[in-house]
Amino acid sequence: MRTLTFQRVTFTMGLPLLKRAIQDQVEKTRNFVSRSLVIGEVLSTADMATGVKCGIIYWLFGGAVRNLGGPAHVTQWLQPLQEQKHTGMFAMTERGHGSNVRGIQTEATFDFSAQEFVINTPCKDAEKMYIGNAMYGNYAAVFAQLIIHGRSQGPHCFIVPVRDEHGRLHPGVTVVDMMHKEGLHGVDNGILRFDSVRIPRENLLDKFGSVAPDGQYHSPIKDKSARFNAMLAALTPSRLAVTFQAMGSMKLGLTIAIRYSHSRRQFGPKAREEVKIIEHQTQTLRLMPHLATALALTFASRYAGTLLDEDIFRGKELVSSRPLQALVAGLKAYSTWENVSCLQDCRECTGGMGYMMENQISGLKCDTDVFVTFEGDNVVMLQVVVRELLAQYTKQYEERPVSSLLRNWAESGSDRLRTSFLAFNMDTVSNLTFLLKAVHFRERILQRGLVARIYYKVMTKKEDFFRAWNSCLHHITCLSLAHIHRGFL
Amino acid sequence: MRTLTFQRVTFTMGLPLLKRAIQDQVEKTRNFVSRSLVIGEVLSTADMATGVKCGIIYWLFGGAVRNLGGPAHVTQWLQPLQEQKHTGMFAMTERGHGSNVRGIQTEATFDFSAQEFVINTPCKDAEKMYIGNAMYGNYAAVFAQLIIHGRSQGPHCFIVPVRDEHGRLHPGVTVVDMMHKEGLHGVDNGILRFDSVRIPRENLLDKFGSVAPDGQYHSPIKDKSARFNAMLAALTPSRLAVTFQAMGSMKLGLTIAIRYSHSRRQFGPKAREEVKIIEHQTQTLRLMPHLATALALTFASRYAGTLLDEDIFRGKELVSSRPLQALVAGLKAYSTWENVSCLQDCRECTGGMGYMMENQISGLKCDTDVFVTFEGDNVVMLQVVVRELLAQYTKQYEERPVSSLLRNWAESGSDRLRTSFLAFNMDTVSNLTFLLKAVHFRERILQRGLVARIYYKVMTKKEDFFRAWNSCLHHITCLSLAHIHRGFL
Repeated sequence: MRTLTFQRVTFTMGLPLLKRAIQDQVEKTRNFVSRSLVIGEVLSTADMATGVKCGIIYWLFGGAVRNLGGPAHVTQWLQPLQEQKHTGMFAMTERGHGSNVRGIQTEATFDFSAQEFVINTPCKDAEKMYIGNAMYGNYAAVFAQLIIHGRSQGPHCFIVPVRDEHGRLHPGVTVVDMMHKEGLHGVDNGILRFDSVRIPRENLLDKFGSVAPDGQYHSPIKDKSARFNAMLAALTPSRLAVTFQAMGSMKLGLTIAIRYSHSRRQFGPKAREEVKIIEHQTQTLRLMPHLATALALTFASRYAGTLLDEDIFRGKELVSSRPLQALVAGLKAYSTWENVSCLQDCRECTGGMGYMMENQISGLKCDTDVFVTFEGDNVVMLQVVVRELLAQYTKQYEERPVSSLLRNWAESGSDRLRTSFLAFNMDTVSNLTFLLKAVHFRERILQRGLVARIYYKVMTKKEDFFRAWNSCLHHITCLSLAHIHRGFL
Repeated sequence: MRTLTFQRVTFTMGLPLLKRAIQDQVEKTRNFVSRSLVIGEVLSTADMATGVKCGIIYWLFGGAVRNLGGPAHVTQWLQPLQEQKHTGMFAMTERGHGSNVRGIQTEATFDFSAQEFVINTPCKDAEKMYIGNAMYGNYAAVFAQLIIHGRSQGPHCFIVPVRDEHGRLHPGVTVVDMMHKEGLHGVDNGILRFDSVRIPRENLLDKFGSVAPDGQYHSPIKDKSARFNAMLAALTPSRLAVTFQAMGSMKLGLTIAIRYSHSRRQFGPKAREEVKIIEHQTQTLRLMPHLATALALTFASRYAGTLLDEDIFRGKELVSSRPLQALVAGLKAYSTWENVSCLQDCRECTGGMGYMMENQISGLKCDTDVFVTFEGDNVVMLQVVVRELLAQYTKQYEERPVSSLLRNWAESGSDRLRTSFLAFNMDTVSNLTFLLKAVHFRERILQRGLVARIYYKVMTKKEDFFRAWNSCLHHITCLSLAHIHRGFL
């Protein structure tokens, strides 16, 4: 299966369209993000494992080089992907730190005399885990704590050779095959360990932090935490790519299930031909909302792609587009959960046929199930959404403290009045304006309530912020979903 | 995988406990149903494919012989399962008829001169499909239209030899391997075709319909449809067995996910040790309701098992226990859907680890996903529940037309008053009595509404019953779930 996927990836990456997409990424051609996202969607519909492996090479490895590195890095590691001179992998997650990546333990110690970084895995928890393309790839974009003179500057990304073009492992690198997963059997995931692997100083992707030959560290962002946030933000396009892959999966599953429902007959009026199962009320009610969601997601995610393209084209750092961060994080969580729920209904609506591998739905289910936890666990994504929302709220509040508070309260009052008034009129429930008002109202109520709760806990009760946030997590996820739902209307 | 499962099944069926369970079924020992159900649950926790294959042999094949046949059949086909002289399969579903089994097309034509039945597959749609143990089993309990003198008496069950003890196929029988499924890779599912296979007259399981040597048909139930209902009702225990298997799966999944959540740490207060992920509010809120459901299901399904045992011990035909039919159909649908939802949360709550096969959760997901559509599709099960509820309602209404109508209305009025009154008092929301009243109220409102709608459509508007029922399907599934939820309180 892996060999087949490898062949498919080689074939696909050799297509003129894909080579062009890489060149576009190299040159930052206008709208290259949107175009690549759609290619990813189509590819995933053809074969999910191939789509995911190409995504690892193009978005994760290529994207890291593009967005965290400089021109020389692009020439050395991104450009050659076109001719398939090498492939890459993305090594961020560790055994001990998956969601909380800030806490990774892999070390990159600067050796002044040799002008090299020493990449090292100090303990079992620091092993890089679930790394896709680990059994085939040549280079890894490795996140590690940058240590200079014994002091960490926080996580940075380094290009580390894993194996040469003949497949021979680089000295000091150990790769362990992680073997069987629920799906994506064509994707090779592995564990990476580094035993003091030496790489040139130039292998640090230095857009957000560089080390001079004399060991001087320099970064445009002084705060360690803000710096890492900027790096993560730069990787936003690859997160959006998951949404496009999930959409591809939904569309394929729905095509199969809806077509089958139009041909399969079961039950019917006495002594008459059985009816098509799509005519069973429950069958329609189970499938059509998913179709509507797939369409809504298509518009919303293409819109997000356009925003990303504009920011990149204008040379704007993605970290400064907070609403866009929230949108992409929310889309990732919402689309991948909707995909799981959609495929489950497709599978159930096609009965025993849906359980057979030859009919694709169950394979799609297994392949895409991992989307809900990889590239940022969905529950963490929901928190990212709310963090961004609160940042906007706080900013607005700080800029115009009194007036904005009053305006908020005034809005709150009129919302409540209008909504409850409209609720008495049954006609308005199916009215789009009413629905829009309702979801706006829900989001605002949840947001104001959350701000008040956290403010009370942290400021009045002097609770630790983490504890306060954690005790509101359910509220946070509700607000997050409310925000995402509103975004679709 | 299949060979391994075959070995496991052979080993398991050879255990004294399992041999005893078969003997108990042969002798109808008091409470044998409850005991076998629990054995099935434990077995499924150890290995789902083994549990399902043993279930096919014990519940489906053995149960058909036990509940549809006479003492001679039990001696000939059930008793020898103890010594594993042969194994069996259950062949009801056809390509053309899965949910609407009444419409199966396999024919069993009585040949008076030879005193034999001729089992025949007249067309592709009549092929028996998804038949478990098809690649290993010796006998099949085959459902076919019983045809005497060119006239069908409706579906009956026949024991048809498939292969001898050396694995050689019986003449006229074709078996096609169905190969890959989402899960249960150890279970061999196949397609069966019969090309005028001759079996002795005695191979008809004749409890609900027998054919005398002179070709005279005799049945204790005159109506063809009622007769088939009685046969299906007799197979109720095997439906309950699915609920026990789903529970086993939930308990195993929850054990893994909850234990992991108590050992894995991620995020935490600044400069302090990260906290156990079970301490994240959302993690607890995602897992604990499933644990509560697993417990509630344990009590409810054991109770259903006890009722079945009592009926069987008292020699009562299961078809006459309508509330019990509704309970078992509802439990099957509810438990298998809850299992899917539970395992999905277990998988997500264990992150990437949950996606790895070695950690069992994803395997359990794939193995048990088929539960929602096999042994009666869940949406069909919900309709069975409501059909039984309405039968009870109609009966009550017919017996005391005026008084019961009045009583219903009176109850309805007081319910509404009490519920809306209680709703003003926040304290009562968490009160069990209030909750009980509320779910009772919801069920009654939905039931009365449904009766009124169907009555109006069929009696006033003269709509065809099938169309009327179909246009209320969403209402029906809501009522069904409301009934099931109430049953747990």
